[in-house]
Parts: sequence; C-alpha cells; structure tokens
Amino acid sequence: MPEQLLIPPEGEKIQLKDYDPDYTEGLDKDEAKTLEEGFERRLAELQDMLYAQSMKSLLVVFQAMDAGGKDGAIKKVFDSVNPQGVRAANFKVPTPIELGHDFLWRIHQQVPQKGYIGIFNRSHYEDVLVVRVNEIVPRSVWEKRFDMINEFERLLAENNTAILKFYLHISKDEQRERLQARLDDPEKRWKFSVGDLPVRERWDDYMTAYEDVFSRCNTPYAPWHIVPANKKWYRDLVITRAIVEKMESMGLAYPEPDFDYATVVIPK
Amino acid sequence: MPEQLLIPPEGEKIQLKDYDPDYTEGLDKDEAKTLEEGFERRLAELQDMLYAQSMKSLLVVFQAMDAGGKDGAIKKVFDSVNPQGVRAANFKVPTPIELGHDFLWRIHQQVPQKGYIGIFNRSHYEDVLVVRVNEIVPRSVWEKRFDMINEFERLLAENNTAILKFYLHISKDEQRERLQARLDDPEKRWKFSVGDLPVRERWDDYMTAYEDVFSRCNTPYAPWHIVPANKKWYRDLVITRAIVEKMESMGLAYPEPDFDYATVVIPK
Repeated sequence: MPEQLLIPPEGEKIQLKDYDPDYTEGLDKDEAKTLEEGFERRLAELQDMLYAQSMKSLLVVFQAMDAGGKDGAIKKVFDSVNPQGVRAANFKVPTPIELGHDFLWRIHQQVPQKGYIGIFNRSHYEDVLVVRVNEIVPRSVWEKRFDMINEFERLLAENNTAILKFYLHISKDEQRERLQARLDDPEKRWKFSVGDLPVRERWDDYMTAYEDVFSRCNTPYAPWHIVPANKKWYRDLVITRAIVEKMESMGLAYPEPDFDYATVVIPK
Repeated sequence: MPEQLLIPPEGEKIQLKDYDPDYTEGLDKDEAKTLEEGFERRLAELQDMLYAQSMKSLLVVFQAMDAGGKDGAIKKVFDSVNPQGVRAANFKVPTPIELGHDFLWRIHQQVPQKGYIGIFNRSHYEDVLVVRVNEIVPRSVWEKRFDMINEFERLLAENNTAILKFYLHISKDEQRERLQARLDDPEKRWKFSVGDLPVRERWDDYMTAYEDVFSRCNTPYAPWHIVPANKKWYRDLVITRAIVEKMESMGLAYPEPDFDYATVVIPK
C-alpha cells in the first residue's frame, strides 16, 4: 500500500487537503485496469474459501460525499464474486423503528455472518457525519459515538470479522462534474437528488467531520483507507488490492472433511 | 422457450421421466455460451432499471437434488449483476425459532424489496419435499401446504413481485458422477456431506414429491421451469434467458425525475 493511502495511527490529526484525490501512484488507466482484474480474480478465489471455511467474515464499509463513487466501486470490485456469499446493505435515512433504538441497532443486524462478505453502502459513520453537520443531535451525544463505534467494531473484530473502511476521496470540482453528468444522462438522472445540493454547500463542514472520524476511529482492527477517487480506475484498484491483501492474511483455506472420504462409496 | 421446458398448466400431472435432463435444443456448448453471455449482459441492464425504478421486484427460486447445480447456476447467471441489487437467501434446516412459526414465516422475511432481485437457494418447497419424504409432519399437514404456497405466492405477485421457479433436472447417474467429483477435488470436498447419500437412496420418492409440486404449484403468476441440467452450459442459458424474457415484460424503465432538471444549476 503506497504511503499516500495510509492514515496515521489513531489519535493523530489529519487534513484531507493533504490527500490528493488525483493520485494514481504513477499508473496509467490501462496498467491500473490490468492490475485490478488480477486482484478481482484472486478475490473471487478467496471469497470461495471464506464461504467454504465458514469461520470468518469480512465487513467492507464505504463512505463518500455524494457522487463519490460508492455504487460504482461496489459494482466493479465485487464483479466476479459469487452473489451467494455477499450481502450489501444500504443505509438510508433511519425509519421510525430504527430511530426508536440506539444508532448501532440497525447496523448490528446487517453485519456479515460467518463465511460472508458484508458491504456497507454508508454506515454507522453517518451518525457522526450528516447527523453532526445538520445538528440532528447535540454535540454531547455525537461526541460519545466515536468511542462507541470503536468498541462495536472491536466486538466484531474479536469475533472473527475482518473490517476494512474506505473513504472515497473526490475533489469538490469532481463532484460538480459528476452531478452535472448525472443530470445530462437520462439513464443516470434518477440518481440525482436536489437534496444533494445543500449537502454540497456544507462541503467544508463535512471534511472537518470526516477528519475527526479518521483521527478518532482509525484502529488497527478496523483501519480507514483514504482512496484517491477522482480516477475511477485507480479507486477500484486501491480497494480491490486492499481487500485481497487483507483476505490473504486471514488464514483462509478449504476445510478438511470430518470423515474418511477415501472410503466413501456412492451407491448406483 | 422450447416446448420441452414448459410444464402443462396447474392441475395436470407430469412425470419427470418424460423430461430429458440431457436436452439442449440442438445447441452445442459454444453456441449456448455465446447466447448465454448475451442474455447475461441484458440481465445486468434490466437489473439496473429495476433498481432505478424501485417499483417492482423479482424472486427467483432454485430447487434441485443434491449436486443439481444450484450454487453453480446462481454464480453464473448473476455473474454480471450488481451485488447491491441482489439478495441471495440460503434456506437450511430450520432453527428452533423458525420452527416455532408457520413454515412461510422465515421465507416471508427474505422476499425481495422493491427494486431488488431475490434469489432463493432452496425455499418453502422443502416443506413439501424433504419434510414429506422423511415424514417430518403427517400427510394431513403437508397436503394443505400446496394451497398455502399458491396463496402466498399470489400475495407476492399481486404486490409487484415477479416470480420464477427453476427445478434443475439432473439424472441419477449424473448425480453420482458429480458427488464422486466432489470427493475427488480438494477444493470441492467441503461440499460433500455423507448426509447426501440417504437422500440419494430416496431418489424415486423425491421425484414423486417434485411431480406433485409441479402439478399443484405451477401457476401463471409463479411458473415452474424444468431445466435440463446435466449440461451446465445449457442449464445456465435456459435460466438466464427465462429471467431476461420475464424482465423484458415487466415494464422496467429509468424513472423520470420529479423536478425540472434542465433548470438545475450546480453551484461552484
């Protein structure tokens, strides 16, 4: 993993303006795509072992500003993976029943079971991002959530769930171009929401909120990755590679049968 | 859809021995694969519209004898589909909590929400198949379930869920070869269960139970397809094609925005 993509350990302050959303570690599009496809193939193999072994799980969290590329990245990165071993959860505005519980209640229900990859499109981090920026709860409430999140993620990690968190980092100019492209394309227009514009106006507040997330919740057991995401092909490479590197370290293997398979005879 | 694959309307008796598991409608492997890939690409487009429109859903049910190819078919057919719009449910031996409810309770929880494709790997049909063959409940109980299933599926269909049901039809000889292949391949051995052998011994009883399913639960709103499945490449073509044909008839389209998009200006 190149230096540029790493976040300093928990507790250290970072500034998102120090992270270049156009960074590509010197690769061009074709090189990146070739590399990405190799990692994708390996990801499919590793997922098959994860599912077969059924002892561990992987949780992949995606956060980004609007048009940051969460949908596109999820589609591309998990292209080759068996849909049977993957569950994507899309966290939207909480329902009344969800709001009747603590903020982690609906999240906990969607964590991946053993053998599965869980994908979070947005996540519990919204409760220290949009909730903070829009002052939906007072500071005294959201302030406590960083520690709650760390403890929750530790619970998962200590119960054999590997966790990777990706922030798809685009520039404000890139967002404008992508929102305009959505408006211009009849097949993408449904993705555009006028509600995205007031969020864009609070860009700097969101950056500050994200910076706090990275300094408070970047733990060894659930690290954040700041993914340079202006170039979609580089973004997909960074994510696929990080997932593969993580899974290679999980001790995945096809399980040995608990019977003597050499003596089994299948009757006519 | 060739004649061979159609089941006569509800109420008519069929015999599975009249259905050739080696049938390929005269296609060879390369021809079938080329056709299948075309349908797969179209399926990805249709799924994107289904998700964008978010008014209808599709439920695809898979049933088969062990090694019939459910896992392989799901992996191949939904290869190109965005994992975000698909949810696969794998119904295993019911848990105590599930057994504390009616047999459709756990099924209902997994039906696809609007915009989604739901995949059932096994289903409520197990409650008139394995439950019947193993006499887990008396005939007086499972007999009533055919009507209950039809009414349940009608509820879904009338609430904008299209339903397709696939029985992957392999021969008893093909099953033996595939079970043996699982034993012989270290990467597939985990799929072999010694519990599959007693099930194989009841092959004829299962065929009778399946025949009753097809004559009692083949409704216009939730039709069964008997998929010749000895040849995996033909099986995948039949399923992908049937799904695409169904989705083409669902009136899917990208939604029109509810605001005047031409006047929207995205601020700097």
